[in-house]
Amino acid sequence: MRRPLLLIPFYALAVSVSAQKNNLIQYVDPLIGTAKMGHTFPGATVPFGAVQLSPDTDTVSYDFGGKYNPEVYTFCAGYRYQDPNIVGFSHTHFSGTGHSDLGDFLIMPTQGKLQMNPGTATNPETGFRSRYSHANEKAEPNYYKVLLEDHNIQAELTTSARTGFHRYTFPKKDEAHIILDLISGIYNYEAKNVWTVVSILNDSTVTGYRQTTGWARTRTVYFSMTFSKPFKSYGSKNYDKAQAYKGFWRKFNQEDNFPDLAGHQLRLHFDFDAEAGEAIMVKFALSPVSMSNATANRQAEIPHWNFDKTKTDGQTLWENELGRITAKLPEKKDYVNFYTAMYHAALMPTVYMDTDGSYKGLDHEIHQAKGFTNYTSFSLWDTFRAFHPYLNIVNPSRNADMVQSMMAHYQQSNLKMLPIWSHYANDNWCMSGYHSVSVIADAIIKGVYKGDANEALQACVATARQRRYEGIGVYMDKGYIPSETNSTSVSNTLEYAYDDWCIARLAKHLGKTSIYDEFIKRSENWKNVYDASIGFMRPRLADGSFRKDFDVLETHGQGFIEGNTWNYSLYVPHNPEALMQTMGGEKRLVRYLDSLFTMHLPDAFFANTEDITREGIIGNYVHGNEPAHHVAYLYNITTQPWKTQEKIRMILKNQYDNGSDGLRGNDDAGQMSAWYLFNSMGFYPVAPGSDEYWLGSPLVHNADIRLENGKTFSVESINPGEKNVYVQKVLLNGQPLKSLRLKHADIVNGGKLQFFMGSKRP
Amino acid sequence: MRRPLLLIPFYALAVSVSAQKNNLIQYVDPLIGTAKMGHTFPGATVPFGAVQLSPDTDTVSYDFGGKYNPEVYTFCAGYRYQDPNIVGFSHTHFSGTGHSDLGDFLIMPTQGKLQMNPGTATNPETGFRSRYSHANEKAEPNYYKVLLEDHNIQAELTTSARTGFHRYTFPKKDEAHIILDLISGIYNYEAKNVWTVVSILNDSTVTGYRQTTGWARTRTVYFSMTFSKPFKSYGSKNYDKAQAYKGFWRKFNQEDNFPDLAGHQLRLHFDFDAEAGEAIMVKFALSPVSMSNATANRQAEIPHWNFDKTKTDGQTLWENELGRITAKLPEKKDYVNFYTAMYHAALMPTVYMDTDGSYKGLDHEIHQAKGFTNYTSFSLWDTFRAFHPYLNIVNPSRNADMVQSMMAHYQQSNLKMLPIWSHYANDNWCMSGYHSVSVIADAIIKGVYKGDANEALQACVATARQRRYEGIGVYMDKGYIPSETNSTSVSNTLEYAYDDWCIARLAKHLGKTSIYDEFIKRSENWKNVYDASIGFMRPRLADGSFRKDFDVLETHGQGFIEGNTWNYSLYVPHNPEALMQTMGGEKRLVRYLDSLFTMHLPDAFFANTEDITREGIIGNYVHGNEPAHHVAYLYNITTQPWKTQEKIRMILKNQYDNGSDGLRGNDDAGQMSAWYLFNSMGFYPVAPGSDEYWLGSPLVHNADIRLENGKTFSVESINPGEKNVYVQKVLLNGQPLKSLRLKHADIVNGGKLQFFMGSKRP
Repeated sequence: MRRPLLLIPFYALAVSVSAQKNNLIQYVDPLIGTAKMGHTFPGATVPFGAVQLSPDTDTVSYDFGGKYNPEVYTFCAGYRYQDPNIVGFSHTHFSGTGHSDLGDFLIMPTQGKLQMNPGTATNPETGFRSRYSHANEKAEPNYYKVLLEDHNIQAELTTSARTGFHRYTFPKKDEAHIILDLISGIYNYEAKNVWTVVSILNDSTVTGYRQTTGWARTRTVYFSMTFSKPFKSYGSKNYDKAQAYKGFWRKFNQEDNFPDLAGHQLRLHFDFDAEAGEAIMVKFALSPVSMSNATANRQAEIPHWNFDKTKTDGQTLWENELGRITAKLPEKKDYVNFYTAMYHAALMPTVYMDTDGSYKGLDHEIHQAKGFTNYTSFSLWDTFRAFHPYLNIVNPSRNADMVQSMMAHYQQSNLKMLPIWSHYANDNWCMSGYHSVSVIADAIIKGVYKGDANEALQACVATARQRRYEGIGVYMDKGYIPSETNSTSVSNTLEYAYDDWCIARLAKHLGKTSIYDEFIKRSENWKNVYDASIGFMRPRLADGSFRKDFDVLETHGQGFIEGNTWNYSLYVPHNPEALMQTMGGEKRLVRYLDSLFTMHLPDAFFANTEDITREGIIGNYVHGNEPAHHVAYLYNITTQPWKTQEKIRMILKNQYDNGSDGLRGNDDAGQMSAWYLFNSMGFYPVAPGSDEYWLGSPLVHNADIRLENGKTFSVESINPGEKNVYVQKVLLNGQPLKSLRLKHADIVNGGKLQFFMGSKRP
Repeated sequence: MRRPLLLIPFYALAVSVSAQKNNLIQYVDPLIGTAKMGHTFPGATVPFGAVQLSPDTDTVSYDFGGKYNPEVYTFCAGYRYQDPNIVGFSHTHFSGTGHSDLGDFLIMPTQGKLQMNPGTATNPETGFRSRYSHANEKAEPNYYKVLLEDHNIQAELTTSARTGFHRYTFPKKDEAHIILDLISGIYNYEAKNVWTVVSILNDSTVTGYRQTTGWARTRTVYFSMTFSKPFKSYGSKNYDKAQAYKGFWRKFNQEDNFPDLAGHQLRLHFDFDAEAGEAIMVKFALSPVSMSNATANRQAEIPHWNFDKTKTDGQTLWENELGRITAKLPEKKDYVNFYTAMYHAALMPTVYMDTDGSYKGLDHEIHQAKGFTNYTSFSLWDTFRAFHPYLNIVNPSRNADMVQSMMAHYQQSNLKMLPIWSHYANDNWCMSGYHSVSVIADAIIKGVYKGDANEALQACVATARQRRYEGIGVYMDKGYIPSETNSTSVSNTLEYAYDDWCIARLAKHLGKTSIYDEFIKRSENWKNVYDASIGFMRPRLADGSFRKDFDVLETHGQGFIEGNTWNYSLYVPHNPEALMQTMGGEKRLVRYLDSLFTMHLPDAFFANTEDITREGIIGNYVHGNEPAHHVAYLYNITTQPWKTQEKIRMILKNQYDNGSDGLRGNDDAGQMSAWYLFNSMGFYPVAPGSDEYWLGSPLVHNADIRLENGKTFSVESINPGEKNVYVQKVLLNGQPLKSLRLKHADIVNGGKLQFFMGSKRP
């Protein structure tokens, strides 16, 4: 098979700290963001892999008291850098989310006496978990290694798209065990298990599935695992508190080498006689459809026992993925930030179909993805802003497939709605807006999505007219969501207005005048929640009056979500000029922005702001959450665009760093990383759905984006430097740009964008 | 399509009480067995239909206290004749079983104020249930009608193989409701629900599924329903006690016209404006595979809204089924007994595949039944005795498909075992023995099963060598199951020995000498539990001694199940002559049998005997349970076969009657009825797996069995009469029979068997 991406020439970089040819993965540190609020995972995966195999390190133990626990709440990717134990390695993880789920099928090797309980964080020796040290840990794209100290077992992980590949090296001649924990999961796992089935097919092959309810209300994942060496024995334990129906199954001892298991809460162990230094390997494949499909996935993807080959194959995929941009950057740490951002922007959504194209849809039926790759886990409130626009440039065929996946979701939806926050054939309805329409409009207007555009427009319109969803009905009737209706009435109104503008743009693009008229009108609804008397967006009651009890710093329960009105009042990305006028003109806007970035906030504010660290806030500008991600660009519509430039460079510097605590807030399924990538290259999609990018201040010295059409778009900084944050002039293909904006066509046609930099504002 | 069965000429009967041409269904009374211990259901079904749509009448209400309740325990078919309320109409039922499950998807119409709770038996007006009267009830094959008195609603039910068809006639102009109760089910239903999903697709179509654990450990049934008239509104209520994960679903009011539902405990209502006298109809199809398959089943089977046509189509199927035997019988009541027995012997197993042949297998994978109809619900401990042998004569192509279904089960089994008691892609392991091997051997030896006989033999052998199943390992080692191992050690040993003989017979038939040798030896193991010192089979300890504490009348916990040693000691159907010798010869056997049928038992005995009424016992001969079903024939190997004849006629008379209480014990999936059919025609398969039938005393005056090969086998009584129970001579095709045995070939070659009857023993 031809793999055209491999044929793209790769240019070695000629800087003092240069990227080595075909070795961009050296710059990726999957541990970035695993401490504090980053919520990334350090484990192994291929780009957008269905299996993301990573260590889980719970801090609260399996003894879950049922109370809200902030320690659990922060525990979204399964792994926290500061946790002292590894409980095991599970196969599915979200990257950077603020809510969680997944953590399917935890595997843990032990040696010596069999322990079927995970033990507790404070007393790890009471269970199969193990202490570990970061000194003995190594994380690369598609490879993770750690020494499990309690048993001195070397654990290594790699993957293909649907298959996890484990290699456990046992230190001594002794009985070895591999635990398969079907109870474990991320986020309130015990309560989530609905049903589990396991079949031991022979002395080295096991299949099964687990059905959960949780963030995904109805979710089933099937597996097929095989061991490199036959187990000599196996067993299970059923932890069901009330197993009402043992019935005639009592005839069997199901704990001891019994091949046919089912229940709510199961753990299994497989036993081996290990030699000193022996490696026992496990291949563990997933399917959203059936156990036999999981087996077929496993056999199709990894028909061998060559762990290193699978590791290398996946790392080659990463080289290709990262090689889409060749960047020259100031320092080694910038390479690490840049390519780790590219890495984090290629983890979600994940492939959601078997090798034969089948998947379980939102309608609980089996479907075939014909002519596209089906994806799941769309964190759209985050990713419509920069992540999907980033893909439209760097990886458009994937984004086209993601749009098609969203359309399939729509077609399978009883509510006739595009996804809000969807994963594994479920919508979990997290966050607000109907931002699928932004992704769709952007992909169609930019020529990326080649499917039926009129059908897509209809899907957008149907979603935006779904009166029963979060105040849309009253929003359609009144032009805003009354404060009585909804605790996020203002942020919803603002986001709906932007989304409506996307629909209007798409309708215009397709010549659908009446739809354009309807939605361009709706797109002005942001005006209805602006209180000119205080100069902020403000909750408004059904009677038209503004809510009296109101704190402009409050981020929760007062009309907004993940942001206060200081940040949200600027959320009119589709018409910032009108917003500026409404706010009183340029001077007022500049003063507002200056205050936002510099004001001093009380400590209480930080305690109430979720999903970000204190460092994720600059003044009152909250970079760690998304609503203000475009805000620094608003100086561009004033006479002081140099403030955009200095703010962008400040944010790049302050908010992104090497190290496990390098991210200041949730990476949010790649959105934060995509923000970094755009901004470090000097431009940003302020309003996806338009075909424009706004110019900031590039960090890169040079960046070549290799487009799928074979062309290259290059960004160059002339006279770059840490203090040279101000853009003196910009040339596109040698011609001066008339404004600080760039068209999508300018990129896809290939060419060169040159920023002439200086330390003084021009 | 040619329907050859319709071409078979039908001969009118010329007796005073004669069967009318093409109207045998008039003799079927589905209410027989619905009172006391019959455990039959009165609702609508086609022969072996997947949907068996019948009223459910719980007596304990939905307020289930969790305690063992004998009232619940007897409540196996959903309906009890003595119950005063109908709670609703559900789509799946076992017929005549002693344990239960099913009762899927309860539908109930009401009018006026919406009631979402079923109410209680003592206060039916507190819920949607209704009082009813048997005077306003009518049950026919494939048709059930009842007046729901609380709302004066006429309810009518009919079916096709996979689709229930409801017609509800509302008396007055008022709001009408149709409840869909997804909590309800038979036998401990609340605890059984694992997960439920419902999709409202449009204003008249609803799909969904329910997953349960219970007697079937992992079971999912999918549905697709449609209404003849669009509902004006609908709603749901989720009765989950701890619905941990409402999450962002809180954004929706899911109780009011919300199309996307899931949870543990759901009920729905659909609302209509009914005119006075308006009939609203529901078609409700099932699938073991998916909702879309359920829809396809519905559309393929009933593409119209003609209730009467579906009723007539199903009744034509019943005419064809019943028309396989044309009987002349003494009285009207005998016609009712005979054809109701044929009816009851055509309810289980049920079709278990979609119209496209797909079904979910024991391995939880989707399979295609290629070239056969797949069946489920095999109550084999009961049905190997007479039911499957009956099919081998009257309906061999169905039995061949049943054997193939059992083989498919084997192929899908992790344990590599044939079914024990299987339903809906599960084995529930109920009762003892591995009697699949009897059914398979019988079907192959009689030329009925045309599949791979050697593969079938291998399946039998693998099952019989599955050491972990109920003492097989120790049985293989010691020749009996020690009493310490198992509370049913003796009955198991006896049944295994018979089953082993079946395997030996099959092995001999296929020329597999070493298998024959192994299993013919095992078939003698019954001798190892015979205690000559007391003249009974008796629990034996591992050390070889017989258990001291032993009561020959006890039916439970002392080595036997559903029978005491008085009945079980005769359980050597494959070698009764050897048993007679072991017991001390003919005189001893006759005395034993005479005692069995005449002894007087203490009242305590009846209290301890399950699944039968007191009338189900004659002396100590327990006809209401199965182990002694062959016992009356044992006189045939003595010089007093006339005692067989009088006992058979006595049992036919005492144990089978018209009326809801006409059955003396569980009908047991057709076994009791098949016993009746064989014996009323004068012969019986004492040892399935042989090709012989033993002769008794016919009740019929005449019976023509129309064989599938186009030939007819007739039984005739010369000089019949209630007192003429003794057989004076027997002619087969005009030639005197040399013994009181008949070969299977004698039947399938067609011909006439003439019994010359008299009131005195010859």
